[in-house]
Amino acid sequence: MPNPVFDFSVLKKIHGLVLPAVLAALAVSPARAQMAPAPSVQQGGAANLPPTNPVYQKIYHVPTADEITATLDRVRAYLEASTPGRLVDGGGQEITDFSQPVAGATVERGGVIVFPLLTYEEGVVFVGMLDAADATGDAKYNDYVAKRLNVMANFLKVSPAPGAATGAAGRGGRGAALGGLRTPYSLDQCGAMCAGLLKARLAGVGPDLSAVTNGWMDFIGTKVPRLADGTIARHIPMPDTVWADDMYMSVPALAWMGKLSGDKKYYDDAVKQVTQMSARLFRPDLGIYAHGWITTNPDPVDIHWARANGWCVMAMCELLDALPDGDPARGTILTLYRAHVRGLAALQSSDGLWHQLLDRTDSYLETSASAMFVYAFAHGINRGWISPAYGTQALIGWNAVASRVNEKGQVEGTCVGTNFDLSEPYYYYRPTSVDALHGYGPTLLAGAEVLKLLKNDKIKITLSVGSIYVSPVPNQPMPWLEDGRAAGK
Amino acid sequence: MPNPVFDFSVLKKIHGLVLPAVLAALAVSPARAQMAPAPSVQQGGAANLPPTNPVYQKIYHVPTADEITATLDRVRAYLEASTPGRLVDGGGQEITDFSQPVAGATVERGGVIVFPLLTYEEGVVFVGMLDAADATGDAKYNDYVAKRLNVMANFLKVSPAPGAATGAAGRGGRGAALGGLRTPYSLDQCGAMCAGLLKARLAGVGPDLSAVTNGWMDFIGTKVPRLADGTIARHIPMPDTVWADDMYMSVPALAWMGKLSGDKKYYDDAVKQVTQMSARLFRPDLGIYAHGWITTNPDPVDIHWARANGWCVMAMCELLDALPDGDPARGTILTLYRAHVRGLAALQSSDGLWHQLLDRTDSYLETSASAMFVYAFAHGINRGWISPAYGTQALIGWNAVASRVNEKGQVEGTCVGTNFDLSEPYYYYRPTSVDALHGYGPTLLAGAEVLKLLKNDKIKITLSVGSIYVSPVPNQPMPWLEDGRAAGK
Amino acid sequence: MPNPVFDFSVLKKIHGLVLPAVLAALAVSPARAQMAPAPSVQQGGAANLPPTNPVYQKIYHVPTADEITATLDRVRAYLEASTPGRLVDGGGQEITDFSQPVAGATVERGGVIVFPLLTYEEGVVFVGMLDAADATGDAKYNDYVAKRLNVMANFLKVSPAPGAATGAAGRGGRGAALGGLRTPYSLDQCGAMCAGLLKARLAGVGPDLSAVTNGWMDFIGTKVPRLADGTIARHIPMPDTVWADDMYMSVPALAWMGKLSGDKKYYDDAVKQVTQMSARLFRPDLGIYAHGWITTNPDPVDIHWARANGWCVMAMCELLDALPDGDPARGTILTLYRAHVRGLAALQSSDGLWHQLLDRTDSYLETSASAMFVYAFAHGINRGWISPAYGTQALIGWNAVASRVNEKGQVEGTCVGTNFDLSEPYYYYRPTSVDALHGYGPTLLAGAEVLKLLKNDKIKITLSVGSIYVSPVPNQPMPWLEDGRAAGK
Repeated sequence: MPNPVFDFSVLKKIHGLVLPAVLAALAVSPARAQMAPAPSVQQGGAANLPPTNPVYQKIYHVPTADEITATLDRVRAYLEASTPGRLVDGGGQEITDFSQPVAGATVERGGVIVFPLLTYEEGVVFVGMLDAADATGDAKYNDYVAKRLNVMANFLKVSPAPGAATGAAGRGGRGAALGGLRTPYSLDQCGAMCAGLLKARLAGVGPDLSAVTNGWMDFIGTKVPRLADGTIARHIPMPDTVWADDMYMSVPALAWMGKLSGDKKYYDDAVKQVTQMSARLFRPDLGIYAHGWITTNPDPVDIHWARANGWCVMAMCELLDALPDGDPARGTILTLYRAHVRGLAALQSSDGLWHQLLDRTDSYLETSASAMFVYAFAHGINRGWISPAYGTQALIGWNAVASRVNEKGQVEGTCVGTNFDLSEPYYYYRPTSVDALHGYGPTLLAGAEVLKLLKNDKIKITLSVGSIYVSPVPNQPMPWLEDGRAAGK
Repeated sequence: MPNPVFDFSVLKKIHGLVLPAVLAALAVSPARAQMAPAPSVQQGGAANLPPTNPVYQKIYHVPTADEITATLDRVRAYLEASTPGRLVDGGGQEITDFSQPVAGATVERGGVIVFPLLTYEEGVVFVGMLDAADATGDAKYNDYVAKRLNVMANFLKVSPAPGAATGAAGRGGRGAALGGLRTPYSLDQCGAMCAGLLKARLAGVGPDLSAVTNGWMDFIGTKVPRLADGTIARHIPMPDTVWADDMYMSVPALAWMGKLSGDKKYYDDAVKQVTQMSARLFRPDLGIYAHGWITTNPDPVDIHWARANGWCVMAMCELLDALPDGDPARGTILTLYRAHVRGLAALQSSDGLWHQLLDRTDSYLETSASAMFVYAFAHGINRGWISPAYGTQALIGWNAVASRVNEKGQVEGTCVGTNFDLSEPYYYYRPTSVDALHGYGPTLLAGAEVLKLLKNDKIKITLSVGSIYVSPVPNQPMPWLEDGRAAGK
Repeated sequence: MPNPVFDFSVLKKIHGLVLPAVLAALAVSPARAQMAPAPSVQQGGAANLPPTNPVYQKIYHVPTADEITATLDRVRAYLEASTPGRLVDGGGQEITDFSQPVAGATVERGGVIVFPLLTYEEGVVFVGMLDAADATGDAKYNDYVAKRLNVMANFLKVSPAPGAATGAAGRGGRGAALGGLRTPYSLDQCGAMCAGLLKARLAGVGPDLSAVTNGWMDFIGTKVPRLADGTIARHIPMPDTVWADDMYMSVPALAWMGKLSGDKKYYDDAVKQVTQMSARLFRPDLGIYAHGWITTNPDPVDIHWARANGWCVMAMCELLDALPDGDPARGTILTLYRAHVRGLAALQSSDGLWHQLLDRTDSYLETSASAMFVYAFAHGINRGWISPAYGTQALIGWNAVASRVNEKGQVEGTCVGTNFDLSEPYYYYRPTSVDALHGYGPTLLAGAEVLKLLKNDKIKITLSVGSIYVSPVPNQPMPWLEDGRAAGK
């Protein structure tokens, strides 16, 4: 007798976008079968032994607010000591009088100063400091930002006429020269830093640098290479190359400029970057991004570099933070963000971090990307974009990241600056360094958001038979369960 | 000149459900091109060396019936010595007079007794013993079951009034107390054990315990938490959580109660559990199950715990065994079962076992799940549900499982009782223990079914140039090639 | 306010076959946003350290023509010394008079001779020598082939009547006997070797052996087992088994016979083999091939043996080389070839080679398949079938392959002759051997094509911040970007 086969399209629907609607129905349904009282856990019995593995014991616990604050403060202190905070003249003497031009004015360097100032990594540090200030209430984090914004403002007062000391070849090398304040020379140089300056301004931190940010926004809007469809691209390594990294280099700046100016064109450009880069780089079957795409090859390069994914998910967080509630693109961005979170969640390693190549367990565990993911998970929970269920991974992910902050406050295990390469070996063998500033901002962001998670009164964190669970407190709305079609809020 | 591109939908169809129909056509076609006589293998020649690797030599051979029987008997003997088989009074003395109430009556414990009695793991042991009896013809396996069923029946005669010593908190801890016979307190406690009792009854083994099984079936039908659509759920870790494990905790009991009672509602509920849990947990692209699904998250947790997959595939085997030939749901269940077998077959490890996280080769090799898969493959071949071609993996999988049965008859390398956790590290670092009873029933089942495979006269096992092949004997019908739509039998 | 969700079908389209059309539009569009001058790379700055890992340093560089030529010559010299090049009589004395029959005539063996002659592996060696001659301009490579073709031609002059010393059981074992010249006994014996003979004839190398190749083509066309739909199959391990290997054993011979004869039936059969085998074995979601498919199982065996994939991609290269420009099947074959290249490119290992099981990083790195992939990438770039962007992987892949050619000219790390097995352990533990001739032809091919890549004036190889890029020289047509529908050329 003929029988129906199982209709796999049902699974595909449920695994795809239709599920939220199904679930919303379940979630609000008052009609359930009679339920027995919640039993105590009977799984495992006598043999339900806890693991004694030291790696596991180090990461699998709920961190305390004090632990997190201590880690954040150690990182802040190291950055404070190691990042330029003063202007010097051509002879290397600190400038204290900003009322007149000073020959050879530039930022301090050498000695204990190991990091540059005008770079995308430092832009993330600014954003992380602002978030840490918000999470801890400690003014020192904002002070860090304000001090460096003053350096920039003062530089504009004392430096020679526009045009001097500009460009990558400026004195002091990459980012050390501040000529980029007047004459931006690459998206790397100004994009993420612009977001940092705009967020500082929105938070009322530091001097007004709108002349700088206006110039940078003009650069982003009209000077940065773009494909014919408006997608931001690079001429590196070849003409019209799309880098996942550039989602972060452009989108947060565009989004916060939209907020600050009220001009919808910035939001629209930010949305365009996310969707058009995703169309080229996102693998919906895996839920992760390829690092890049070259005009001369129809296929994305299927190498899933962790930090590239970090840039994307952080960019989407910033856009969702900035985009007004009723914006018709929210649903689009939320759908992509959620699909990405799900893909990333499927790839956490045994030790709580993520691999340098996300889907290659034989690649090393990388700190900066892991911190970005911890931030993105915790932030999305705090905002109500994703289920608090992802909180387990955020909490133990944070513990794993924190274990890489050493006594000095240095962040270990971060992949150094990385080209868009077209082969796996390049990524497998990228060195790591405590001097890679890329790890510091994300660590601040991850700690700040996990701290907010601990303080979030809409969720509760429970321990049951050795497992950590994060769930909504009862009778909360669960917006992440709504069909994306209705998720405009 | 324009050319057609390759239509990938053809591949997708062929890789999907349409293939069996295509193949059935091929298989019955009398028209083939002229064929040369079957040549001897010319692959590799002088360099076609056999592997000298000791792991390979241990697992890659056709096991003998004697080897299997010896392993089964060693496991049986260890279980016989280590599992409660007597009732004792409050003073610890064995009860021999069951004609009147005895204060503090309970099962023996301590000393050589290391396992509990009234648990799901022991339910699987019962099912395994019954299958081993069937495969070997040795009454000792049925005796094991009968002895413990008598303990239960006698407990009901001598124990105090209903309500005493019930619940998880009953004396002797989890499963040691027999109060659950009268007052079930969780699906874990009664579901799989109910299947064991029902199968024993169908096999005519042990006393009539229908009062117990009727109570348990009522509990499963009306007291166990369910979602609004009737899917069985738990309040652990959060309200309305779907565990893959519960497919086994519910479906075999429902299926065999259907068989015993003839009441279709049990079959229908069993089918509903398989399909509705699969809709939430099965990943059709991977062919494997997620461990669980939480109402507060639209996505399944994409962590593919091996034993959760074992519970699912074993539950489907039991349902297909019980479900009448003409039942319209057979095609649905067969399709799911076959897709799952294919997914599992793609993930056998280098050493013949499967990994704790199925798709993570850096997770440890786990015995209980591996034994479940070996059982499911061999059973499906013996039943004609899947191609005998899967027999190679079943045979060497058995050798790998058998290598984990030590001299004492203990099963090594089994993951202890395991929560539904929301992070990978939890699963990576679950300890293993010979005291985890979860490995014993599946090992009995795996050995029994592989023994039946060796005796199966519808298939032949051949060795060719160092490879093992299992194929249908000529002129057999091959029901697994039929389109699922017609696979009602 | 309701918002649109992101339409994932857009991504799927872009990741699928629609992308090339989209890109072609982009590529030819004259309208781009204003672009800043190409900036120097600013990624990473002070921390952008080069890797010091010795494996990386060994493989990640652009090889020189001299390096490649030296490696090729070392392999050629070893093969010249180790492969039969003389006929001997029954007493082992070299035959020099070919004007009359000689009792017991056969090829030399023993001593320094370690390889057989009439085998598919040697067929690939012939093809590789011809390609190396073309790439280097060095006559010694063609001489190697001509010498062995003369051995065959002379054997036909001096050997006894047809029928003697034929078959696998002929004197000297597999391939040592030359009876297969007159009476082919398996596709393995004659298929790839036939391609070698046909390509030699097209290149004007060696004597006319069309009597032999005509016999072999008749065998392939009418005697080799086929399924009802005409797909070439084997009776090993079971009746009507499709081996991916047989794509190479049949398609190049069919394709070059099509070229030589002008008879379209050969092309059509070659196209049929590629498409029908792909329909059974290719996984479009992964972009790679399963090793085999058995009529008694509707599913392919999802074990992705590297060398099986090598046979497929090399067969497609040969077919695309031979198939006339306007043939309506070119688009189909190009689409499959490109999807396969993309799948393979996603799976290169950390060390530049590919794994024995392509998607299992815990399986060993295998030389023969890696060489085949390097060949297929470089050849496709040289022909304009795929983006030059794949050149990075080809170049460092070659370095990795070359590192496995030892001082003697032996190719190390090649998996020995391999059955189609139905379990992963079989493949994991296949031994490797320098006596596995399978590695030699592919190494010649890989080196020859990478040498052509270095000399290819349509592409340029650049180094930028430590990364290797291969790109088209400006204003080149980019046929690989065209929609496959229009890719008839």
